[in-house]
Amino acid sequence: MHPLDNQSERFVLVTESGTRDGFQSEKAFIPTETKIAVINAMIDAGVRSIESTSFVSPRAIPQLADASEVLAQIDRRPGVRLTALVPNARGAERAAAAQVDAMICFVSASESHCQANLNKSIDAALADVAEFLPIAQRYGITVRGAIATAFGCPFEGEVGPDALLRVADFYQEHGINELTLGDTTGMATPPVVERAVSALLGRFPDLRIALHFHNTRGVGLACVMTGLQLGIREYEAAIGGLGGCPFAPGATGNICTEDLVYLLHECGYETGIDLDKLCEVARQVEQVVGRPLPGQVMRAGPRLKRTPLDQVRRAVG
Amino acid sequence: MHPLDNQSERFVLVTESGTRDGFQSEKAFIPTETKIAVINAMIDAGVRSIESTSFVSPRAIPQLADASEVLAQIDRRPGVRLTALVPNARGAERAAAAQVDAMICFVSASESHCQANLNKSIDAALADVAEFLPIAQRYGITVRGAIATAFGCPFEGEVGPDALLRVADFYQEHGINELTLGDTTGMATPPVVERAVSALLGRFPDLRIALHFHNTRGVGLACVMTGLQLGIREYEAAIGGLGGCPFAPGATGNICTEDLVYLLHECGYETGIDLDKLCEVARQVEQVVGRPLPGQVMRAGPRLKRTPLDQVRRAVG
Repeated sequence: MHPLDNQSERFVLVTESGTRDGFQSEKAFIPTETKIAVINAMIDAGVRSIESTSFVSPRAIPQLADASEVLAQIDRRPGVRLTALVPNARGAERAAAAQVDAMICFVSASESHCQANLNKSIDAALADVAEFLPIAQRYGITVRGAIATAFGCPFEGEVGPDALLRVADFYQEHGINELTLGDTTGMATPPVVERAVSALLGRFPDLRIALHFHNTRGVGLACVMTGLQLGIREYEAAIGGLGGCPFAPGATGNICTEDLVYLLHECGYETGIDLDKLCEVARQVEQVVGRPLPGQVMRAGPRLKRTPLDQVRRAVG
Repeated sequence: MHPLDNQSERFVLVTESGTRDGFQSEKAFIPTETKIAVINAMIDAGVRSIESTSFVSPRAIPQLADASEVLAQIDRRPGVRLTALVPNARGAERAAAAQVDAMICFVSASESHCQANLNKSIDAALADVAEFLPIAQRYGITVRGAIATAFGCPFEGEVGPDALLRVADFYQEHGINELTLGDTTGMATPPVVERAVSALLGRFPDLRIALHFHNTRGVGLACVMTGLQLGIREYEAAIGGLGGCPFAPGATGNICTEDLVYLLHECGYETGIDLDKLCEVARQVEQVVGRPLPGQVMRAGPRLKRTPLDQVRRAVG
């Protein structure tokens, strides 16, 4: 069952991808028990969908070499979906053994990013997906399709709807009905999001689309506003705004989960998430990575938090 | 003439308020010639409206004690509007002598913030405004009315439309047709913005409203999206995202001008601003304040900037 099934119209699914998309970018290896504690704390805060890790080659991403151990020790609960990135048949076998709730296959919409990221062509990457689908099927595990560089490619520039439809066609032909559009390097803008989503829903009205934005140029939550207006009800984000390069101050990665949840709640959407608890997790994650993260709400606190009058600092204007 | 007069429907006026709202929060005094250089560079980048300084008491805000000298030395050009904050008759005389293009009067929508900020009640603050209006009139200088804590008060919580209408009524009765709604502590959200703007335009359809957001909880540009949909065509921002407390890492102040301009341009609006030049100014301002600022676009660069393929860093996903 998809976490959006039987939910109200005002429910928005927030998928936490920081333990994958964030932790893989950290230079230092984050201890397995820390990863597990973070994921358990997020589940405890009400997060229902977590892209927990990645079954790529441990040589390629040593930071996530403990994928199986992490999944084995998470405190799993009904209604919480734990997913993982899976690049090929070998990864699919490992993911199935670790009992992921869904496997995420991925390919870039642009040829040169696919080459740079996976060291193979789009066709070859899709062939890898086709190869591992029977494994997922055998174990009865849902496969979700991700498209990287969906809103632009750092090497090629603009990525048009045709490039998205090519991959989406392949996914549909192979029975993949859930799609993530990944804003790999922060090139999404409201009009680009509208163009991409409209093209995909135009061809596949029943496609379940999730949007995965990076805040590289500061407009991640503005893009969420556009997504909401287009009826998109699933967004991926990273706790604290993890991701990006830790050595470029202020260069953010994913949009920040707590800030996204704050925006959604303030706009009258439900997420099932306890924002205070989630902010507490974000502060713990800041300790884990050892530097301030870009998340704002964890610092500023709830909107209606009252400042005692004796803590006044005159601002004038 | 208002800078929006005779502009196309797609023109959005971006008012830079960093040299006032940002520089006043810096602990160290920024040298007068540096302030002038920053403002001149912004004008050179195409910024047409600048809240350049403040004629409050130099004892209250020593950082802006050089207001008259700054205004005297800016390279003024036709079509560029230089405004300044003016709290009272004394400030109005100084501002008039410095030949500001518009004076900005201000009062909080909430009683306790008005007390904390100005050390007087809303009624007393409005009486001060009434007192200095004849001075502005005598010099033929436009007065713009600002309302602080327009989207919420850090001491009182929610600020309803009635509190805004009370001040707006006063402004209208005194011939003030331009209004800034100030999000003093980052409490604006899309629904709160919609409620405030609708209430004001419902009573005063011809009111010229500018929105001044802080990014304290990360949703500043999401609020801009709402403002644009409501037809608002003026936004205030601070270069680099200046403002906020320099001693709380990541705690941002105003929304960032370059990121705002990036969003507007990408959404098909015109601002007259050269974004590359503006980013260059933002980087200079970072040097001036001596710490990284939260602006994203000045670091990430233009959306379609191409990364050479040999600079590839594998991300996987």
